[in-house]
Amino acid sequence: MSAAVLINGEWRPSAGTETFQAMNPATREPLETRFPVSPLAEVNEAVEAAANAFTATRGWPGERFAAFLEKYADLIDARADTIVAAANLETALPVEPRLKNVELPRTTNQLRQAAAAAREGSWALPTIDTKSGIRSIYGPLGPVAVFGPNNFPLAFNSIAGGDFAAAVAAGNPVVAKGHSSHPETTRLFAEAAHEAAQATEMPAGFVQLIYRTSHADGAKLVSHPKLGATGYTGSRSAGLVLKQAADAAGKPIYLELSSINPVYILPGGLEERFDDLVGEFTTSCLMGAGQFCTNPGVVILRAGPKSDEFVAAVGERFSQAPAGTLLSGGVERSFREGIAALKEAGAEVVTGDEPADENRCCYANTLLKTTGSTFLANPVGLQAEAFGNSSLFVLAGSDDELVAITEALEGNLTGCIYSHTGGEDDALYDRIAPVLREKVGRLLNDKMPTGVAVSPAMNHGGPYPATGHPGFTAVGIPAALRRFAMLQCYDNVRLHRLPDALKDKSPSPDLWRCVDGECRQGDIG
Amino acid sequence: MSAAVLINGEWRPSAGTETFQAMNPATREPLETRFPVSPLAEVNEAVEAAANAFTATRGWPGERFAAFLEKYADLIDARADTIVAAANLETALPVEPRLKNVELPRTTNQLRQAAAAAREGSWALPTIDTKSGIRSIYGPLGPVAVFGPNNFPLAFNSIAGGDFAAAVAAGNPVVAKGHSSHPETTRLFAEAAHEAAQATEMPAGFVQLIYRTSHADGAKLVSHPKLGATGYTGSRSAGLVLKQAADAAGKPIYLELSSINPVYILPGGLEERFDDLVGEFTTSCLMGAGQFCTNPGVVILRAGPKSDEFVAAVGERFSQAPAGTLLSGGVERSFREGIAALKEAGAEVVTGDEPADENRCCYANTLLKTTGSTFLANPVGLQAEAFGNSSLFVLAGSDDELVAITEALEGNLTGCIYSHTGGEDDALYDRIAPVLREKVGRLLNDKMPTGVAVSPAMNHGGPYPATGHPGFTAVGIPAALRRFAMLQCYDNVRLHRLPDALKDKSPSPDLWRCVDGECRQGDIG
Repeated sequence: MSAAVLINGEWRPSAGTETFQAMNPATREPLETRFPVSPLAEVNEAVEAAANAFTATRGWPGERFAAFLEKYADLIDARADTIVAAANLETALPVEPRLKNVELPRTTNQLRQAAAAAREGSWALPTIDTKSGIRSIYGPLGPVAVFGPNNFPLAFNSIAGGDFAAAVAAGNPVVAKGHSSHPETTRLFAEAAHEAAQATEMPAGFVQLIYRTSHADGAKLVSHPKLGATGYTGSRSAGLVLKQAADAAGKPIYLELSSINPVYILPGGLEERFDDLVGEFTTSCLMGAGQFCTNPGVVILRAGPKSDEFVAAVGERFSQAPAGTLLSGGVERSFREGIAALKEAGAEVVTGDEPADENRCCYANTLLKTTGSTFLANPVGLQAEAFGNSSLFVLAGSDDELVAITEALEGNLTGCIYSHTGGEDDALYDRIAPVLREKVGRLLNDKMPTGVAVSPAMNHGGPYPATGHPGFTAVGIPAALRRFAMLQCYDNVRLHRLPDALKDKSPSPDLWRCVDGECRQGDIG
Repeated sequence: MSAAVLINGEWRPSAGTETFQAMNPATREPLETRFPVSPLAEVNEAVEAAANAFTATRGWPGERFAAFLEKYADLIDARADTIVAAANLETALPVEPRLKNVELPRTTNQLRQAAAAAREGSWALPTIDTKSGIRSIYGPLGPVAVFGPNNFPLAFNSIAGGDFAAAVAAGNPVVAKGHSSHPETTRLFAEAAHEAAQATEMPAGFVQLIYRTSHADGAKLVSHPKLGATGYTGSRSAGLVLKQAADAAGKPIYLELSSINPVYILPGGLEERFDDLVGEFTTSCLMGAGQFCTNPGVVILRAGPKSDEFVAAVGERFSQAPAGTLLSGGVERSFREGIAALKEAGAEVVTGDEPADENRCCYANTLLKTTGSTFLANPVGLQAEAFGNSSLFVLAGSDDELVAITEALEGNLTGCIYSHTGGEDDALYDRIAPVLREKVGRLLNDKMPTGVAVSPAMNHGGPYPATGHPGFTAVGIPAALRRFAMLQCYDNVRLHRLPDALKDKSPSPDLWRCVDGECRQGDIG
């Protein structure tokens, strides 16, 4: 007997015969509950139910989606301890501060911010051309499939995280595909989501949950004719399989795939803030055992005695710090393979690269280094992502080499440059920054990349292969909502038939609209 | 000796040995000038030169791109007669009013609107979060390849049309791939573009022109590591080859592929405005020999005596109107094949479907009809696009069938509904409109789809297979610019290093910025 799936408004046994169990990475022991692998018929049933739900909701005002999201956030708060305990058991992420004080409040905050955006409506960029009688607005595009990652069991959960919140706030039903490493956490969220949906009178298929599918059925899900779009956060290899299927079907898919988040520490900055940088970098890199999309996986320095000292000091900290528990046996295996691949490509071990504790999923904090010329000889191999508590230091022989390394970088979510506060590094900064700017979604100064604030100005995105399209962000409201929307133009449509946000009378004093080239609040004319 | 290509700021002979000639569709005679098919090395050289140009321009203010676009528009105006004459010879589109009084002014108007948008800067959605120190803006993403279509030799020309204007206004160099049916027109534009680039001190590879490549080399162009994005307007089959290559490389590609633009005429509307509708429809469908992306290729009616009368009246008009000259022998061939395919799928001929004049490229105005049940039995086959002077009338046996037909529609650029002005059709309208809304980029009332106004509220886009992504428009400024841009976030970046549009002091009183959730003009703080 495996856990029930949530399909078309009902918790029911899965039709699937195959099951899986999560494991406790802190003990390597399997957790008791069995979860089903949903067969294709069940996946299709979910999409059909979501499409039916969409038929009911597609004309609804943002207020309806806001009410659901807020009720859901309240229900999550009410059962926070249970959810946090499950997530801790399944991921070994610490209850405090991480899960309880940081990630859970972030999750409900995102849901409430998304609700506010749905209610206010400016996210949809209502645009009115009074002279031509043409008006346009972003509107929902239909059922959205959300594939959540392993590393944020709450804030990026497929049925509670940022993609879920954005898809719902834009007016779309969601078919959540849980991550196999934390199915119970996801099930608990889905219980709250289902209750919230009932309490706010959402139609039956508006929120649904399956735990796992085969890769082939996942590809069928993202290319289903009745699907509107997909949000995916996870490994590059699995993501690219989905991308190919969705692209071939002409279905939008937003992917967050991989990123090594280059950090530059320029000579003046290193000289000026040596001790602070040792601490800041070590904290950023080892936090959460390095299992962040924005973990600083590569650090680029000018070679020299001070940099050698820096490598040694960080290596010392790495070797002293306890090795954090990794999210799963799969993560541990990939991490070890990633480090092996970097060594194969020419990286040398400064410290680590050895087992840390056989009783739990983990591996020693690992610092690698290489020269700029070695990096430039194999830039693809030395940009492999080793997802975990490690980083690669690249020591460039000259400023030209530093620039050449930047030119050889793939697309990343972030890029940071630390430089001297008095301007001593400015000439070099000015050579690197314009090149780096085009390679990353978020450019930082004097700050490590691991914090991703939920700000309207945030970009948690970047050029391929960091994501599938450099114009969209997965974090940040309202911009994240526009991923799950289509542009809907009304030409000469009779005024009473327009959506409220495009009528002459504004539905809300808060709504911003672009009217004949001016951004305005209030009524027209 | 074939015409020169424009590569890296110089007109020079192509390295290609293969050549082609355009033909005059009004006489079926080949035109004298030979144009080269560029080999892969030449294509790659153009991308490299564009990437070098981008290195120079990527930090420039919008003013620089605006100056180029305005100078270019002036130079086009100055040689309008020459360009129009060439286009007339290559496409048989009439000099007046079409080319001289409509399409050429639209072209320069688009360039000037794009210039104004580049100068003003609001298109880039500058967003400032003063509390977190995070700021973001859309910025250029690198060289853009533009593939223009055959049917608008001026306003959608690869080196003068909407995609070109949008890509440049967003700050990107353009590699134009001309359409093979009007190479001389394109060459004349490129001469003006090159002069404008020199006059406004743009770098050498900023605007470049090749006329033709093999399909395989086109696929390499859109997936080139140094390319930023592609804009394509043309046939579905060629576009999908490019889409697959660009998607696999993670390069954004914006495609306008095909559309049959369903028009619904509801019973009350037909009764009320019978004669007007016969005229409006015939004019819209036969204008430009039906060679518009938004041509009404399918008309959906309730079966009945009045609809039979309507079919007969339109058929009469079709048979009386002269058959317009088609753009090329290739268009003529595809058109005939398209009609044959519709017949094969079950459509009956009302009138036409025969050669009209062997001395020029053309085919009789062709009206087809079918029943709703036939359509529903083969919805894919009966939605084949026959690009030219034809349309298919679908006569639905019931309101339910009308709705079912709507549900069976593929994605389209437009969808129109004509209904009774006194509200007699409103119940039926309310059943159809929500279904149609999700299938089309632009929903019209009481108006044929063929006019595409350059309005900030326009959407010339729609769900696949009309385009490759339902969130973007190819026409309408400023939205069209955002296709050729990436989201660039600045986190804790020192204030003097920010782009001007993100500094506390606004670079222009006209610039709209989102500051802490408010849309504002002027300085911060």
